Amino acid sequence: MEVVDVDLGDRSYPIYIGSSLLDRPDLLQSHVKGRRVLVVTNTTVGPLYLDRVVAALTHGGSNISVESVILPDGEKYKEMGTLMKVFDKAIETRMDRRCTFIALGGGVIGDMCGFAAASFLRGVNFIQIPTTLMSQVDSSVGGKTGINHPLGKNLIGAFFQPQCVLVDTDTLSTLPDRELASGIAEVIKYGLIRDAAFFEWQEKNMQALLTRDPSALAYAIKRSCENKAEVVSLDEKESGLRATLNLGHTFGHAIENGIGYGGWLHGEAVAAGTVMAADMSYRLGWIDDTLPKRIVKLLKQAKIPIAPPEEMTVDKFKSIMAVDKKVADGLLRLILLKGPLGNCVFTGDYDRKTLDDTLRAFCHS
Amino acid sequence: MEVVDVDLGDRSYPIYIGSSLLDRPDLLQSHVKGRRVLVVTNTTVGPLYLDRVVAALTHGGSNISVESVILPDGEKYKEMGTLMKVFDKAIETRMDRRCTFIALGGGVIGDMCGFAAASFLRGVNFIQIPTTLMSQVDSSVGGKTGINHPLGKNLIGAFFQPQCVLVDTDTLSTLPDRELASGIAEVIKYGLIRDAAFFEWQEKNMQALLTRDPSALAYAIKRSCENKAEVVSLDEKESGLRATLNLGHTFGHAIENGIGYGGWLHGEAVAAGTVMAADMSYRLGWIDDTLPKRIVKLLKQAKIPIAPPEEMTVDKFKSIMAVDKKVADGLLRLILLKGPLGNCVFTGDYDRKTLDDTLRAFCHS
Repeated sequence: MEVVDVDLGDRSYPIYIGSSLLDRPDLLQSHVKGRRVLVVTNTTVGPLYLDRVVAALTHGGSNISVESVILPDGEKYKEMGTLMKVFDKAIETRMDRRCTFIALGGGVIGDMCGFAAASFLRGVNFIQIPTTLMSQVDSSVGGKTGINHPLGKNLIGAFFQPQCVLVDTDTLSTLPDRELASGIAEVIKYGLIRDAAFFEWQEKNMQALLTRDPSALAYAIKRSCENKAEVVSLDEKESGLRATLNLGHTFGHAIENGIGYGGWLHGEAVAAGTVMAADMSYRLGWIDDTLPKRIVKLLKQAKIPIAPPEEMTVDKFKSIMAVDKKVADGLLRLILLKGPLGNCVFTGDYDRKTLDDTLRAFCHS
Repeated sequence: MEVVDVDLGDRSYPIYIGSSLLDRPDLLQSHVKGRRVLVVTNTTVGPLYLDRVVAALTHGGSNISVESVILPDGEKYKEMGTLMKVFDKAIETRMDRRCTFIALGGGVIGDMCGFAAASFLRGVNFIQIPTTLMSQVDSSVGGKTGINHPLGKNLIGAFFQPQCVLVDTDTLSTLPDRELASGIAEVIKYGLIRDAAFFEWQEKNMQALLTRDPSALAYAIKRSCENKAEVVSLDEKESGLRATLNLGHTFGHAIENGIGYGGWLHGEAVAAGTVMAADMSYRLGWIDDTLPKRIVKLLKQAKIPIAPPEEMTVDKFKSIMAVDKKVADGLLRLILLKGPLGNCVFTGDYDRKTLDDTLRAFCHS
């Protein structure tokens, strides 16, 4: 088992990464405060892993009592109505301030369960058990929680850190190929924004990741979590540096919102967004022309989209991006690549026309 | 103008208390971050004060642009559907991370606007302009924000501190008598839990408060805010001491929930709850019999309820109190008076039978 520590003072916590961790009752039990647990999962993951989580929590005659709420699966359910079902269940089952909410599932479950934990009784304990590559390498780490609004993604939420993150890599065995590829888009991101050696490792090992080689996956998860933990430790509330983790996400969120949540997976939209961000960076003269090509090659190998869908027009992109969280005083700030591989900037200081050029290159007007 | 500082490290902020403060543009403008403001108010307070707040914000050619959302008035609207209207307006008007939400109204507006500010884009700036005595002496100070759930009061929310609190005592001139009395119930609370001299001052000056003598009101607000600021500074997240501010509130919340939000004002329910808590404290032998009598006398003078309404049966109290936020591992903790005037405890260590005796003394079975 590997342990990556997220260093946030009195809100620090460990990320456990390894095989068969769901069979380690000590790990979960040591991070549960109080005696009541509410597991939040969905109709896909619940049938696969809920019993094992309950068994781990109650193993050895622990005095922990476990309730669960099973939500419908999918990004389109990451909204207020579904969130209310978590509160309803928590209140019906008399969860109190000392209880622990456990997110068992992918990014949608983690984001919703985390926001529910942040808001229920103004904050209860929280544990993440991410079961998708996307959530294991990205969304379960760092404390960003929230739900979507009909007009934009993740517009309502909280920064709220878990007690621990438990990544059992065995859960990837049940993950559909398309979901695996979606997670790989975020793995590629870390290389591009801050870890050239990791990007080069991926160029050599993409096939191993796609065939689910356990040691390749474990390394990719560990290195991704280390990168994310370092960034989050330096800038928990995203005053600057942390925003770089959103490479490709402003374009990506616009795609997800524009075609309706659930149409594309998050990583698919981010992949197309990353290609667009690289294109714009090149047009600005900030990177040389080899980098966009290397990105496209890697994404193609993973069979992830490298362009937005047909229905995303220039105007659709613009109107959705106008309400992005990274707009400040009316100015849209973007994460763009700049300099050698592994370097990026978060800036509103770019030529507007270049953004238009990129949008026109990828979309109908 | 008086200034009471709430000392919370890098989240410290001032409470400004005085007459004509809405005519002091410098106060508001110096606490607005960014250039966009969303004022959240209601159909009662908006027509009275919104124009003056907008004028103060834009006075002298400031570059602040102001939007507003006017919610229906009343505790029954402190719920998710109404909260969503704040998010809708914020997104429609393109509020961004550097914007400021201003709560203009009583406790319901402050709690909802505060939770909206805590959750919108995972947190934006926030200013409180409380216009009721209740919110000026209690709810606007200390960062508790949230909404009600159909099954219980304030069950969903966040701890989120404002940039400042602006108490213009002139706004009390438009406050109905019943609302004024409701606020007085919270003023009385501070004397009982930690400030014997303040309680004795109230016994001498209740008539002046009820006739709205400006200097009596200003003193009561200042002394209440000082007491609250001290408690909150010592225990922001309510691990213990802060809970004492909820004297009478467990019984009170049960009344509000049991008869439907908006049936009684918050302070009215708290007043009846305070009498019940005092009764229970006396039955436990923790206070002598003069104190409950002094409390009842003071509340009667203010014409505030001293007992729960008919429809609150023993069983109704019990079933609602079982989901109170102060339940921990199945045990209901209460704030009870103990020792001389000005002393209280927050404890689950009391005879269950005595709670039953108090409920039976005040309610039908």
